[in-house]
This record gives sequence, C-alpha cells and structure tokens, in this order.
Amino acid sequence: VAATDEGLPDDVTVAVIGLGLMGGSLAAALKRRCPGRRVIGSARREETLAEARARGWIDEGYVASGDAAARADLVVLALPVRSIMGRVGALAHCLRPGAVLTDLGSTKRGVVAAMAASCAPGACVAGHPMCGRERRGLDAAAPDLYEGATWAVCAGSATPEAVQRVVALAHAVGARPLPMDAARHDAVVAATSHLPYVVAAALARTVRRAVTDEELAALSAGGYRDTTRLAASSPEMMLDILLTNRDEVLPLLRGMGEQLDTLASLLEGGGDGEALAAYMRQARSDRRLP
Amino acid sequence: VAATDEGLPDDVTVAVIGLGLMGGSLAAALKRRCPGRRVIGSARREETLAEARARGWIDEGYVASGDAAARADLVVLALPVRSIMGRVGALAHCLRPGAVLTDLGSTKRGVVAAMAASCAPGACVAGHPMCGRERRGLDAAAPDLYEGATWAVCAGSATPEAVQRVVALAHAVGARPLPMDAARHDAVVAATSHLPYVVAAALARTVRRAVTDEELAALSAGGYRDTTRLAASSPEMMLDILLTNRDEVLPLLRGMGEQLDTLASLLEGGGDGEALAAYMRQARSDRRLP
Repeated sequence: VAATDEGLPDDVTVAVIGLGLMGGSLAAALKRRCPGRRVIGSARREETLAEARARGWIDEGYVASGDAAARADLVVLALPVRSIMGRVGALAHCLRPGAVLTDLGSTKRGVVAAMAASCAPGACVAGHPMCGRERRGLDAAAPDLYEGATWAVCAGSATPEAVQRVVALAHAVGARPLPMDAARHDAVVAATSHLPYVVAAALARTVRRAVTDEELAALSAGGYRDTTRLAASSPEMMLDILLTNRDEVLPLLRGMGEQLDTLASLLEGGGDGEALAAYMRQARSDRRLP
Repeated sequence: VAATDEGLPDDVTVAVIGLGLMGGSLAAALKRRCPGRRVIGSARREETLAEARARGWIDEGYVASGDAAARADLVVLALPVRSIMGRVGALAHCLRPGAVLTDLGSTKRGVVAAMAASCAPGACVAGHPMCGRERRGLDAAAPDLYEGATWAVCAGSATPEAVQRVVALAHAVGARPLPMDAARHDAVVAATSHLPYVVAAALARTVRRAVTDEELAALSAGGYRDTTRLAASSPEMMLDILLTNRDEVLPLLRGMGEQLDTLASLLEGGGDGEALAAYMRQARSDRRLP
C-alpha cells in the first residue's frame, strides 16, 4: 500500500456529482472534517440540492453536472456505474486545468476504460470505497459512512499527482486507500460482494415460494434476515454492477451452483454424515476472516 | 394461537438437560424471572455444572440426566436433535407422576415420533424456540435469549395439561408460544433456517476459493459478513438438523439451484437487462417481511 498521508488541502474545492447515499455521505464527511472547504453538489432534482444545502453538506448546487465540475479542483462521480461510464467523457471536457476527476463506482474496468478514452486520461482516477447500505438516497447518507472503509484506487492512465489527490480524499473522510489493478478489483468484489448479492436474491425468492407470509413472519429469525439482507439492495444499482461485471460474476455463480450440488449429494448420501460434517467444518473455517 | 398466559407456578421445579447456549440461557431466564424457583441442571462435564451453579443459574447439577429428570416437574431436553431423539425413551421412564418432558430441538418430526413411542406419550410435548446464535456453550448463554422469540409447540400425543405447562414455560422466559403441526414446522424452518445455513456455507466455500486471505480482509464489507454469518454455526448441531430434515431441505436446495440457473441465464442474456432487473425487484419484494 503506497498511500501517503498528506491530506487534502483545505483550499481544494470538491464537486460531488450525485447526492445519494455515497455522494451525500462524502459531502457530509468533507464538511464535517473541514467546514471551510468549498463543496459543490450536483443532483437531478432541485429538491435534493436544496436539502443538501440546508444540511450544510454543500455550499452550492447545480442540476447540470458540467456546471458543478467546471468549478472544482476535484470532481467525484457518485452515480450508478453505467451512468459514470456514460458521463466521464463529457465531464473530462469540463475540467479546469489541474483538476482531477474520480468516481465511486462499484466496478472498475469499464470506468478505467472510459477514463483512458477521455480527453484527459492523466487527470482521471477510478476509485471504489467499500462501504454501502441497502437504503438509498440523501436521507440515508451519513458523515461517518467512510470511516475505516477500504477505498480501492485504480490509477489507470492517471498521473501520480492525480492519484495522490484521490488518496488524500480517501484519508480526508477516514477511509483506507488501497491502490489496486482494476481487473483484479472487479474479480475480487465479484466474489466478496456481487455473488453474495445474487445469492441473497435467489434465496429470498426460493424461501418466499415455500412458506406463507404468516409462517415467514412467525418462524424466521436473525439467520434468515441476515442471509437475505443484500436482496434489499437497489435493483437499479445492482443491475449496473452485474452487467458491467458479468464476466467475473458468471463463473462464480456456476461455482456456487456446484457447491450446492455437492451439498445435496452429501445430504442424499446419508450414512453417518461424516463427509457432510467435514464440509460444514471447512465452510466455517473458510468463513473466518483473516 | 391458543396460548393462555397462566404463567408457570413458582413451585414447578425445572430440570434442564444440556447447559449449552439454549439450556444455559433457559436456566438463566427462569432464575432471573423467579429467583425462588428450583432449577436443576445436567451436563456432561462437572465443570459446566460448577460454572452454572456459580452463576446462580441452577440450584443443583447432575452428570446423569436421569438423576436430574427424576427430581423435576418439567424436564427440558436442550441437546442437539439426534441426542434428544436418543434420550427421550430413557428419560420418559424417569419422570415423576405428573411431570412433563419437553425439548428445544430444531426439527420436530423425529422428536414427536420418539415421544409418541415412549412409555409416557401423554406427558411429552415437543418444542422449538426460534432463537439462537452462532456461538455455543454456557459462555454464550444469556438470560434474554428467549425474549420475543416464537416458540413452536408441537403437541403430538400430549395431554392438554402437558401442553399447557410448556406454553407456560415459554411465557415464563418472554417467548411467544405458537402451537403447530410438527411436519409443517419442519417444512417451514427448512426454508427459513436450514436452507439459509446451507446457502451461507456454500457461499463461504465459493468465495474463499476465488480470493486470497488479504483480498478477503481488505475488500469484503458488511454484505459478505452478513450473508455468510450462518456458516459459522456449529457443524455438530447443523449435522443433526440436516440429517433429521433431509426430506424438506433437499427439494429447497434444488429450488435454490434453479433460481441461480435462472439468474445466470438472465445475466448471460444481456440486452438491456430489463428481465434481470425485474428478477431483482421481485427478490427485494420477496425479502420484505410481512
């Protein structure tokens, strides 16, 4: 980890494009750590901008993302991944000299490619803070969302100075920047994040077909709630993630199916269940975080 | 729900066979609500009995479960399911006149059958409080474990008086007794509890094969932790549950595999992803508790 801890100078103006959970929380965290910093917001709806201003999380707001980007030293795209990929080219055109463009998207290969193809590849750095919640929007945002979270930083074609500014941004909101390759990032989060979501969604559908509403309410406990929690994620956000990371998610999905087949065989096999018990012991050990 | 709220008379002596998470918590809850009640414990190890006595959760302890059972008005088997099934016959022989035998096992058809085949079918009531944790043993026990939990009560061949005593026990520790058929109980918990466990175990194994320890530590967040949490359950306890509920779990496991196949097809299909988005919206709605 080559992250240094220089911090983000107070006079760096930050524009946050998209004021949902991630963008709203970023603006809030920046303002809490440094109330004097100028933070500009951009959102589709005027009401969102007004609410963010009322909370003191942004100083000014624009519906047009280009208007926000043109006024900042650091532009942060906090949108669903496919929206980020679609917006990078136009926003790179709006950057002031010396300004840096980054993003908070959940997959990185497509974003890095869009950045490399833009008019300012040296000024564009892809990023992904590993935090999130099922709840969406500015109402779910909180200034402590980034505390302690790993923030993957994929340099791509960016200059060291541009990368350093994004590393400083991560530090400024309490996150731990982790430089990494975009392709490996996408492979890892496919396993640690996207596969768990897909599994939770499939589980929620399987369970609901087997029991009535009343039975589910009376006879489910914390186990069901936790195992299916990710199924409550935003379908719009997850659609972008799955479509931009299909090549990594599909083999894992097949691997998961094979594990379930193995478990079914072990259970059908009967006997004293020693092989089944061994599988479960291994799963418990696999689950343990290092 | 035909549960009345008569409460468990203070002079009813309770024997708890097995002082792990469930049995230890039950003894603790009984003593907290009614310090004067006599609570007898049974555990394989003298150290466990000494610890339970030191905490004030039992008044006396016996390694031999028959010695504990013969001294109580209400005997509660708090062991893994197959141990319960193996012990019911012998303990029914030890019951004092008017005493009741019940259990806390996670599956109920096999227990109800063992109870019906015992020498005192009228005095035996199967039960299952829907609470639990991954941590095991007396050290994990807590007097509030049963607060608000649904406690399934399967009457089987029991007399109404015996059933009433178990209903009163549930109320006495803050749980909500729910009379239900053993076969339907097993079908429902297969979906709400056993399938989520199996899925969590398979997911933990799939993810660990795809990433290194360092990657898992740095790039996994709450989603991975929650979705795989049940994989940390006791393999011994889960083996008993799966082997005694195989007929219900296997079809659900196959149904889960079909859902994953459907998701893989939707993802492979590509296009604008509208069908995939519809699947995810349905999963989010299915997951919502009534």
